[in-house]
Amino acid sequence: MSDSSSIRKDERFDVVVIGAGVIGLSSAYHMKSENTDLRIIVLDETGAAGQGDTAKSAGAFRNVFTSDVNRLLAGSSIDFYGHIQKDLGFNLDLKYSGYLWLLADKQFRRLENVVESMRREGIQLRIWEKKDLKDMINGVNLEFGENDEEAGIIKAENVVKGLQGIKCGVVSPDLIAKFYEQEFRKIGGTIRYNTKVGSLLLEPRARLGIPSEPLIWQDKKISGVKTAAGTIVADTVVVAAGCRADRLLDPIGIDARFRPRKRQIFSLRSPKIEALLNTKGFNEYDMLPFTITPRAGVFIRPEPTERGFWVGAADELGRSFRFEEEPQAERDYYTYSIYPVLSKYFPQFMDVSPTNMWAGLYDVNTLDAIPYLFEEDGAIVVSGLSGSGIMKADAVGRMVTALYEKKEYANLYGGKEIRVARLGINERDVGIERFVL
Amino acid sequence: MSDSSSIRKDERFDVVVIGAGVIGLSSAYHMKSENTDLRIIVLDETGAAGQGDTAKSAGAFRNVFTSDVNRLLAGSSIDFYGHIQKDLGFNLDLKYSGYLWLLADKQFRRLENVVESMRREGIQLRIWEKKDLKDMINGVNLEFGENDEEAGIIKAENVVKGLQGIKCGVVSPDLIAKFYEQEFRKIGGTIRYNTKVGSLLLEPRARLGIPSEPLIWQDKKISGVKTAAGTIVADTVVVAAGCRADRLLDPIGIDARFRPRKRQIFSLRSPKIEALLNTKGFNEYDMLPFTITPRAGVFIRPEPTERGFWVGAADELGRSFRFEEEPQAERDYYTYSIYPVLSKYFPQFMDVSPTNMWAGLYDVNTLDAIPYLFEEDGAIVVSGLSGSGIMKADAVGRMVTALYEKKEYANLYGGKEIRVARLGINERDVGIERFVL
Repeated sequence: MSDSSSIRKDERFDVVVIGAGVIGLSSAYHMKSENTDLRIIVLDETGAAGQGDTAKSAGAFRNVFTSDVNRLLAGSSIDFYGHIQKDLGFNLDLKYSGYLWLLADKQFRRLENVVESMRREGIQLRIWEKKDLKDMINGVNLEFGENDEEAGIIKAENVVKGLQGIKCGVVSPDLIAKFYEQEFRKIGGTIRYNTKVGSLLLEPRARLGIPSEPLIWQDKKISGVKTAAGTIVADTVVVAAGCRADRLLDPIGIDARFRPRKRQIFSLRSPKIEALLNTKGFNEYDMLPFTITPRAGVFIRPEPTERGFWVGAADELGRSFRFEEEPQAERDYYTYSIYPVLSKYFPQFMDVSPTNMWAGLYDVNTLDAIPYLFEEDGAIVVSGLSGSGIMKADAVGRMVTALYEKKEYANLYGGKEIRVARLGINERDVGIERFVL
Repeated sequence: MSDSSSIRKDERFDVVVIGAGVIGLSSAYHMKSENTDLRIIVLDETGAAGQGDTAKSAGAFRNVFTSDVNRLLAGSSIDFYGHIQKDLGFNLDLKYSGYLWLLADKQFRRLENVVESMRREGIQLRIWEKKDLKDMINGVNLEFGENDEEAGIIKAENVVKGLQGIKCGVVSPDLIAKFYEQEFRKIGGTIRYNTKVGSLLLEPRARLGIPSEPLIWQDKKISGVKTAAGTIVADTVVVAAGCRADRLLDPIGIDARFRPRKRQIFSLRSPKIEALLNTKGFNEYDMLPFTITPRAGVFIRPEPTERGFWVGAADELGRSFRFEEEPQAERDYYTYSIYPVLSKYFPQFMDVSPTNMWAGLYDVNTLDAIPYLFEEDGAIVVSGLSGSGIMKADAVGRMVTALYEKKEYANLYGGKEIRVARLGINERDVGIERFVL
């Protein structure tokens, strides 16, 4: 761990990457790996790799999307993570334990065509009958009587089918970050932790010594960053700062193109729920897939090493857009918003309280929920990961590299290509994501 | 002027419109005019119509656009303003005095095709030769010698042509707002000034009396607004609050889809510049058109009643996105950013200092600079006017009305139709604006 006091004034690098989360580290690693002579420095205000919102993630991944961009970004990244763990022997706690969407009748009928079209694109999906789900999942409650008042209040609909994404599962975001950190350092990359970037340096290309420079008629360029310990000058600044990006980009008038929204995770352990951990039939690990209920996106994620589950939800309207330095999980949110749904479908959670909880911030792209990647006057901005950054980080890092190299296409892991401008603004072309529940 | 203390608790209206700027008042007027039984109330924190950013506008309008949506919105609104002034006898200080773009060679060549395509769409344009411009515009400087060091520093390029938009000109935004206010009141509309909306009311459709409602599994609806003087309940809330919209929408998790950016205007009066006011040949008023220089969007707008000019600029990179309650114009901005360009092309401005200056906020849509209009759970949001709200306010008000009435198309003044969803999010279809200088 480097100390920020070691930064001298006006150090020079070719590239400064702001943010040592999965996106910043993947970008730094791929840029350096493709351009070994480049002097690249990664800066992060925390003390280690992936300790910002990367660490707050639910650590799940899926390749189940209708947008071909989503499939390319997530699919190739997941394959690369599999390669890291299997071929390179770097453990990521990655398990293809699957995603399991429990579907109400209306949802299933709406998705039938979507499922077919995804299958044609090679996405492995399995549909389970209600009877199978009942047999396989300990204690699960899929049907509610007409007199079930609670079910009526929370509008818990009967589940008719289960949809399993096979090439989906769980992974440790922290370990992905550590992999990129290790590899980036191996090839000579520099990382400084505990180093907060205060602002971007916007300078006229030709300084005149006039007050208030840069003036409106001057050609300008982002030419580095200011930190408490001094200025770092660079030709290119990669802004991979997640929900902190707007604090850097707003002052120079570049829209970071996301809104910050808190997402909470509650960790639950209890002898009552242990049986649910051992669920046979869905995968080789005999564990429950990452399972999503039909109401409000309430999900449960097995965490076998903790002998428990993480649970959360995908709330939208009513959940404010707001930046907080240290977002806190709210016990009331568990009690009143998540618990009624969770305990309805999984009665074994009844009276189980969270033993731990935490909150992170999503940088939500409210336009299409697919990342933005664009270059503007010396800055490369990658933003709007919308909570699916972990599962797309490898592809995004390769696209950052291609954008830096002014290549039209990025080569993703596995050999597929993607046009870099598809994630940009003017020529944005990200398809339509119709797999939304 | 109503006092906010006259609001009783839990008043009920059919529609609350937040904001008595041109957009809010046009929307309220058209909604009420089409649905005379509707109980509509307009709320504004200032003391009179159009006293927010409407009043800070440069008060200019143009129909010169390549996007058909821009042409429809501005063209039909301008026609309606002409109708108000000519046929209804309500003075708006509207003059078809023209826009005049002074074009450097590169700009002209880039725009030649664009000009042709706009002409095919019926936009009246006139191209002036350099010689004509020199003869017509008192003291204008269109060519700079190679030894002109100042011109070199600010990169003042030689002007080769002038492009005049004929159906363009100046208008008083304040008077447009007053027109809608008067007409809205005539047909029974209610307006309350000095009434600040503190928050939107987001409520479950069925309240249960549980803490932290609305919960994530409850169906929710925006059902009114809270003000210091009490709650106003309404079926529909129209958010036409300009740069204040995100303060209302962020807390309930709706993206207002704009970034706030300060724009400044400097008012100049001096005997030295009076001759420029009387410029013959461009229009029936023998006045200089609203004239845009080739550098940094520096413009001059004749203000004959003040015997002077308003000047400003269209800066982008380096001009922060930031909300300020009371944005202030900066004298240094005039001195170092505007003045060098202005006095280069118009030497009569040399040593003339602003006698007055003010600043407003643009609500910039950084995606395509064309307004957003969408409905979400009881709220109709109109935002991202991007500094061209005055010239589009009438059409936008009619589209708000159509959206409220759940009509697919809005009828604009003059008989043309536009699909309401074209300004929305999911089916957004606004064409490409290629007339950007």
